[in-house]
Amino acid sequence: MAERVLVIGADAGGMSAASQALRTAKAAGRDLDVIAVDRGHWTSYSACGIPYWIAGDVASAAALVARTPEQHRANGIDVRMVTEAVELDTDAGWVEVVDHAAGRRERLGYDQLIIATGATPVRPDVPGADAAGIYGVQTLDDGGAVLRHLATPRQRAVVVGAGYIGLEMAEAMVRRGLTVTVVDRGPEPMNTLDPDLGTQVHAAMERMGIDVVTSASVTAFETGPDGAVTAVATDAGTYPADVVVLGTGVRPATDLARAAGLPLGPSGGLRTDDTQRVVDGVWSAGDCVETWDRVRRDWVHVPLGTHANKQGRVLGTNLGGGSARFPGIVGTALTKVCNLELARTGLTEGDAVAAGLDHVAVTIESTTRSGYYPGAEPITVKMVAQRPSGRLLGAQIVGRDGSAKRIDVCAMALWSELTVGELAMTDLAYAPPFSSVWDPVQIAARKAADRL
Amino acid sequence: MAERVLVIGADAGGMSAASQALRTAKAAGRDLDVIAVDRGHWTSYSACGIPYWIAGDVASAAALVARTPEQHRANGIDVRMVTEAVELDTDAGWVEVVDHAAGRRERLGYDQLIIATGATPVRPDVPGADAAGIYGVQTLDDGGAVLRHLATPRQRAVVVGAGYIGLEMAEAMVRRGLTVTVVDRGPEPMNTLDPDLGTQVHAAMERMGIDVVTSASVTAFETGPDGAVTAVATDAGTYPADVVVLGTGVRPATDLARAAGLPLGPSGGLRTDDTQRVVDGVWSAGDCVETWDRVRRDWVHVPLGTHANKQGRVLGTNLGGGSARFPGIVGTALTKVCNLELARTGLTEGDAVAAGLDHVAVTIESTTRSGYYPGAEPITVKMVAQRPSGRLLGAQIVGRDGSAKRIDVCAMALWSELTVGELAMTDLAYAPPFSSVWDPVQIAARKAADRL
Repeated sequence: MAERVLVIGADAGGMSAASQALRTAKAAGRDLDVIAVDRGHWTSYSACGIPYWIAGDVASAAALVARTPEQHRANGIDVRMVTEAVELDTDAGWVEVVDHAAGRRERLGYDQLIIATGATPVRPDVPGADAAGIYGVQTLDDGGAVLRHLATPRQRAVVVGAGYIGLEMAEAMVRRGLTVTVVDRGPEPMNTLDPDLGTQVHAAMERMGIDVVTSASVTAFETGPDGAVTAVATDAGTYPADVVVLGTGVRPATDLARAAGLPLGPSGGLRTDDTQRVVDGVWSAGDCVETWDRVRRDWVHVPLGTHANKQGRVLGTNLGGGSARFPGIVGTALTKVCNLELARTGLTEGDAVAAGLDHVAVTIESTTRSGYYPGAEPITVKMVAQRPSGRLLGAQIVGRDGSAKRIDVCAMALWSELTVGELAMTDLAYAPPFSSVWDPVQIAARKAADRL
Repeated sequence: MAERVLVIGADAGGMSAASQALRTAKAAGRDLDVIAVDRGHWTSYSACGIPYWIAGDVASAAALVARTPEQHRANGIDVRMVTEAVELDTDAGWVEVVDHAAGRRERLGYDQLIIATGATPVRPDVPGADAAGIYGVQTLDDGGAVLRHLATPRQRAVVVGAGYIGLEMAEAMVRRGLTVTVVDRGPEPMNTLDPDLGTQVHAAMERMGIDVVTSASVTAFETGPDGAVTAVATDAGTYPADVVVLGTGVRPATDLARAAGLPLGPSGGLRTDDTQRVVDGVWSAGDCVETWDRVRRDWVHVPLGTHANKQGRVLGTNLGGGSARFPGIVGTALTKVCNLELARTGLTEGDAVAAGLDHVAVTIESTTRSGYYPGAEPITVKMVAQRPSGRLLGAQIVGRDGSAKRIDVCAMALWSELTVGELAMTDLAYAPPFSSVWDPVQIAARKAADRL
């Protein structure tokens, strides 16, 4: 009889794991019987694409779906939507699920379990946080809810939290004609950058017409007679709101795993080995796990689709009988606000200070192309290196078109633990339409090396 | 008395060496007396920018000059233009120079010599190769000569050689209204790519209106009564020409060094150690040296401004009393033809075959952004990996806007000798406006790893 694989959560991590497990097992002549349950309505979608759907850059939710339930079924996966896993017994090997559509509860036995329950938006612990009109941006249903608000003219939106999702949603809504205020606790938006680069993000947001309120903590969500949100109260003032978007981060959705006694880290994320195995017969991938950070040399919770897909593939390869490992991350991320691109990898200067690391930090200004070439745009690169070793600790980039993807070079240097002196001498591509003769990343690395 | 440093050649390699030597020595409280001679009229210019000046993207030759003779003099370097080094005695420590402006010949003694004589275009060894109207594209004077032809209407240009300079010059001239034919010996243009990617370059050239003649060798340059070129004869036909541009490569300009008995490699380039020292008291950098290729594990001649600048800086640091090393190259280069970007690093499939390496080669098609995001453009990535180790051997990229600079990730992977399996799992930046969730480079690496 075929081995039964049960997948909880049918998004990136779970379904890439399931598909890769089937492929790997099939290649080895083994048969797997795969069931996937998900409490939502959508499989394998790009949550990262939601802001662009809100903005109107993407025509429909369907465009964000990489693979529908039907497509998964055609590939041999028994996908059951609107079906919630409510209890897990890893000793006995079963999951109790509730099919909310049919109103039916049943126990599904398994030989191998994949937990891919993702993450849920953090709601500030203040009065009114569960009011109507306050949305996280996690599922396509959340996106649809925000979109319905855009149909009403003169709506006012408040975004709480100026991180990636907060910025992207603020831009999307201001482009759709809403009046948008972004409230953030930090001294500058985008606290995964140092504040000296955050100022550029701040300015770009204001140029778009976004009202930016920094160093402000939310104290309450005010509501009207209908129970819907009417304003966001902070220690720096109160901002009227017809719709509120939460960009306050997410936490691993691991209540089921916790109740089952599975190992969790301090973030609440599942702890796996580098094959994505939690315990014998139980695997996990995606936004519900902690990930090894190769620079911090510690476990972190970094909910990004790129990690979920890679972990899912590693998981599926191992579950299917092959061999693969997920080697960890270095903390790379990027986005754009209007025409300002921003990116980071590794440690910021603030991180290095907090970690008590002896370090140097340098910032350089350059251009994305040779200065004399048409379309050369400004780029700022900040680089942090350990002292006295010179080992690269992290980099941040803010600039116009053609800037942010250069962070990949820094991510590769972090990956291989290069010093800034080595990075300055690597063989990067140069031609006037693409770079100055010393790539901006190398100018920063050279300056850091000189400072050491 | 200050140590006398004599520099032969006042372009990228020589002048970055001289400037860095002065800085380093000064920081150590030492005094250097630096003289630089150059037989031309320009210092520290971007030869790579010449095609963009011809195209009209750059307004003047002056825009391509990073530092003029006057600026170098203000920095304390005694720059002597139109002054040619004609004899070198390394035992006695002097160079005989001819000041062509003053018609004066003198012997300049030195304590330390920097040879930065660059490279000279290779002229095909066929009748008429020295005719008027046939230009290499090496100096700003060459650029000016080609530009003067553009003033005459209905000029016909033939470019010999479809490498980087050939393509860039062909595009520049066709944009300026010339009728342009490119003649190349290879089966497809751009022989630093495999022919299967070269076909895309071929098509892009034809879309611009360039006449592309492949598998054709030049047999003669026909000339008119005034001695100027009138046509390029090949074994595949004869092509009328009012102006001919040579894109047939360059060779190290090392006649002086050879006559002095200094060590040269098979390409004719000077051999240096990784401090850029040739022999005691003699240093060299830039287009006149051979460079260590970390992938081929052999010496190569790769005349690129990016290497010249880095080598010059290393040379200057060491000459000035500091410590630095040039760690070699991996063979990275890129350019664009109209809106097609192209890039390469490491070995092509053809190189791997020629070297007798057991390998796999894969090619993937993807998009520069998430498929659903506006402006997602096609990108092709070809990757070559060693079998059975999986070590990355090389990569090639052809695609639209946002494609080619991704080669840097492959260059970094080559630098650190990653396997394709590792490359597939590195932490590259992802957001829908910048990449698919698996970067195209990682899709290729994954496919190569699967094939192994």
